[in-house]
Amino acid sequence: MALSKSPYRGTRDFFPNLKRERDWIFQHMEKSAKAYGYESYDGPLLEEVDLYLAKSGEELINDQIYSFTDRGERFVAIRPEMTPTLARMISQIHREVPKPIRWFSIPNLMRYEKPQRGRLREHWQLNCDIFGAPEGLGEAEILSLLVDVFLSLGATQKHFQLLINDRRVVDALFKNKMKLDEATIYKLYKIIDKSKKVTPEALGKMTSELNLSSENQQLFAEYLSLESFQAVVDFMKKCDQADSTTALVKFLEIAPSMNLMPYLTYDPTIVRGLDYYTGLVFEAFDLHPENKRALCGGGAYSSLLKIFNEEPVPGVGFGLGDVTLTDFLKTHQLMPDFSKPINDIFIACQEENGLHLVQSFAQELRRNNLQVVTALEPLKFKKVFNMAEKSGAHSVALMGSDEIANKTVVLKNLKTQTQETFSLDKISDCLAFILKSRG
Amino acid sequence: MALSKSPYRGTRDFFPNLKRERDWIFQHMEKSAKAYGYESYDGPLLEEVDLYLAKSGEELINDQIYSFTDRGERFVAIRPEMTPTLARMISQIHREVPKPIRWFSIPNLMRYEKPQRGRLREHWQLNCDIFGAPEGLGEAEILSLLVDVFLSLGATQKHFQLLINDRRVVDALFKNKMKLDEATIYKLYKIIDKSKKVTPEALGKMTSELNLSSENQQLFAEYLSLESFQAVVDFMKKCDQADSTTALVKFLEIAPSMNLMPYLTYDPTIVRGLDYYTGLVFEAFDLHPENKRALCGGGAYSSLLKIFNEEPVPGVGFGLGDVTLTDFLKTHQLMPDFSKPINDIFIACQEENGLHLVQSFAQELRRNNLQVVTALEPLKFKKVFNMAEKSGAHSVALMGSDEIANKTVVLKNLKTQTQETFSLDKISDCLAFILKSRG
Repeated sequence: MALSKSPYRGTRDFFPNLKRERDWIFQHMEKSAKAYGYESYDGPLLEEVDLYLAKSGEELINDQIYSFTDRGERFVAIRPEMTPTLARMISQIHREVPKPIRWFSIPNLMRYEKPQRGRLREHWQLNCDIFGAPEGLGEAEILSLLVDVFLSLGATQKHFQLLINDRRVVDALFKNKMKLDEATIYKLYKIIDKSKKVTPEALGKMTSELNLSSENQQLFAEYLSLESFQAVVDFMKKCDQADSTTALVKFLEIAPSMNLMPYLTYDPTIVRGLDYYTGLVFEAFDLHPENKRALCGGGAYSSLLKIFNEEPVPGVGFGLGDVTLTDFLKTHQLMPDFSKPINDIFIACQEENGLHLVQSFAQELRRNNLQVVTALEPLKFKKVFNMAEKSGAHSVALMGSDEIANKTVVLKNLKTQTQETFSLDKISDCLAFILKSRG
Repeated sequence: MALSKSPYRGTRDFFPNLKRERDWIFQHMEKSAKAYGYESYDGPLLEEVDLYLAKSGEELINDQIYSFTDRGERFVAIRPEMTPTLARMISQIHREVPKPIRWFSIPNLMRYEKPQRGRLREHWQLNCDIFGAPEGLGEAEILSLLVDVFLSLGATQKHFQLLINDRRVVDALFKNKMKLDEATIYKLYKIIDKSKKVTPEALGKMTSELNLSSENQQLFAEYLSLESFQAVVDFMKKCDQADSTTALVKFLEIAPSMNLMPYLTYDPTIVRGLDYYTGLVFEAFDLHPENKRALCGGGAYSSLLKIFNEEPVPGVGFGLGDVTLTDFLKTHQLMPDFSKPINDIFIACQEENGLHLVQSFAQELRRNNLQVVTALEPLKFKKVFNMAEKSGAHSVALMGSDEIANKTVVLKNLKTQTQETFSLDKISDCLAFILKSRG
């Protein structure tokens, strides 16, 4: 039986057109991160499973992770996320380097999932994190960087928004004001997390099962109806929990200087990973009616290094996956056409004895940083332009028998269709013509 | 017990300084490949083990591969090499696209190996392949591209050379001239492969065990003593096997036009993977006395698509790994200093009420494509320059209480130590000063 030509389920073959899309996205991610002085890092594809267990608990490990025992009896996994690797690396160096630490990475990750729109088994994810930043400032910088990634890809505030909440607000409400026990708080968080996906009736039913006092029921309902940052600040003040909004207020004070306000919306239903985030939490949300979904999540966390018995270093970060982002860009028609490569010039000759001239001319041009595609056999006139077009070249160099005899070349600008004959000695004249053809 | 902070055995944590080394290498690889019109592709991290079995046989699978059964009972492996994925992808599209097909990739790969100098479990590898090129021409182009990778990284012909052989020559000698059976040929290939690593006596002993006729012994010895392309052409002519050097001669005819000759050395001991290569084979070899080893291997192969029941498409390619290449660059002191990041400017203020000015000024500069690091809290004068230096910034922007009050900023060029005060409104003047500081 012949082998399958298909990629493994939930993964992608990046043929050159798809790779160019990915490269374009990654280049903009990298450029945005570097504009804020974030340094690129990377870690191993495999980590010991203990690392993920320590961070995420049993659930993820059992169901969604690619884990196996290696030939040396180590229980390892293909990285399903970058944060545990980041924590391990930061734990090695955080005492020696000046704060804040600003790092980014675009690793490939694998999760055992049922492939569906927006979810594949293999994906890439931009991870940006800042450690040791003052409260409110790190959050603003991370969100500003995230906004810049979207803007650099051509998106505007009509395409996406950032939904914001603060875990300290929710915690203060549940613990200090409503005085709920841990188990009830945990259930209430789960209800919040689901609140947008269910009907108001279903929400009411879930809440009623918790047997909250009528006062607490009213507080919870009031909380879920909060629609602005001012409203949440006022509400928490009314609850005698003004302290819980200090960091949020500091964030809101600096955000306008980073032009963040047009993208921010307060959303009481955003809570993110329960055991992980401890401060501001956020999601980037697609506003397209056909693709209403979270594109990215992140927030502030304080105890990341605890698993290494290290003192806490406050961090803020996000992960932006390539699968949902590509869907976002295509849904909004923001993805450029990458069906063809781009090259400077296609060089061909029409006689066998011109092949060495094609090659030496090509080498001269490459030394001048041009992208050069050569025909490796003599081509008929008609085929030259067909091949040149498919190579994505801006110009063509052609040598017929006369040109070969005279050591000259005909250069043609494929956009303007102008052409000129040059001596092969006059490289700088050729270069000028070819660079002009880039248009 | 605290978790281990070390990376999994045989893998690397790429802290920013190491990541900058890797990025620098990859950028030059990519630039060289694109200069020849090679298109970037990528494939999945996991493939079904059957794919590797079909290409490489049992040995690799049993000993060196990271294989496991997924939750859906598929027997899969983390890619140990890119060629099988490449073959699978090419088999999907080779009928539709014009030849030659020129592709490159820089995937991360994993092999279960004992970590040692030049060999790690996780590594990256530049793969360049051309399909459907005329004999000799594809080989020359691939080798020229490989040479350009080395040259772009600062290496010269005193640092490396390309050792060349042709499997058709060896096959013709063994089969047609010496008339050996398959089993003896296989053993003789193995002896050749080891010939440089053992003493002449050991070599003689291994060969004598094959019970070759005295005529064949002499032919084999004569073959192993060949030291130039002319010598091998003459020798094969003398053996009535001139046909076996046709492709080699065609390659040698075009090679000078690509400036290849200074890098090429004929080496009868290069044979590479036995079941795979069918034409020209080569190795890039480090000339440093302390690092004499192969940096890269490749060659021409004709039956790559056979495993998919597809008609053969001739290919030529190589794989250049990052571990040996990094050793090579460091041994020859060709690796630049990447200990510090590079940024355009470090911006700080000395009073709390200047933080929003720092941020809005930073945003203006980022919109103009600068890499900007900001201090997120007020800094004392002395600390500003210490932090700026560590951030790798070319210039510093500082706002004391006067500047904050007047909405001005002091810009300082860290190289020339010149400084000037600008109004924060005059962004284009600020930009001119900062760009000049890049030096």
